[in-house]
Amino acid sequence: MSDHEAPVTPVPAFEPPYYAAVFTSVRTQTQSGYPETSARMEELVQDVPGYLGMDHAQTPGGLAITVGYFRDAEALTRWRSDAEHRAAQQRGRAEWYESYTLHVAKVERSHGFVRE
Amino acid sequence: MSDHEAPVTPVPAFEPPYYAAVFTSVRTQTQSGYPETSARMEELVQDVPGYLGMDHAQTPGGLAITVGYFRDAEALTRWRSDAEHRAAQQRGRAEWYESYTLHVAKVERSHGFVRE
Repeated sequence: MSDHEAPVTPVPAFEPPYYAAVFTSVRTQTQSGYPETSARMEELVQDVPGYLGMDHAQTPGGLAITVGYFRDAEALTRWRSDAEHRAAQQRGRAEWYESYTLHVAKVERSHGFVRE
Repeated sequence: MSDHEAPVTPVPAFEPPYYAAVFTSVRTQTQSGYPETSARMEELVQDVPGYLGMDHAQTPGGLAITVGYFRDAEALTRWRSDAEHRAAQQRGRAEWYESYTLHVAKVERSHGFVRE
């Protein structure tokens, strides 16, 4: 969710089934408080049992995509129910997001490639 | 898959179930032929029956994420079996990608937000 560091490797494939939460967004001009909240959410999600990792990419001035990976539906429910996370989502709708879509999906197959 | 235009709105939520193919990648220094092939793939996938749309974001010099949305598993199989697509994937492993991960997932729930 934050732009303060560019990951250099994609999150690897896990053994299916697991869950992916795909969050695609375009932000408003009003970004006060966003970087701090985003960093805090990245920190907080690590404590969720069953959290596996996160990929993030953002085209400058364009679309941002964050994909969170979770071991099972229970892990996602825990993250979705987190009070601090819910408050951040509310503020996101009030101030930070022009538009967004969330797709919650069960991964059925996956594979990875790493150059030797 | 291409970087030649920044989409200004996320692909909207569809009625579940549908499929999302999440492709996360880091590219090599060797990008000869990549933009043309990427543009061609974007064109080609539109002809796949059941193709719903695509989101793409790339952090400059960092991670790229492409998410393709498909009505059902059959649509994904069609796209996966396309001969021109398979040739592009081979060339990608040979030249363009440092590493990538593909997660194929069935969307169970989704929702969107658009500022008024």
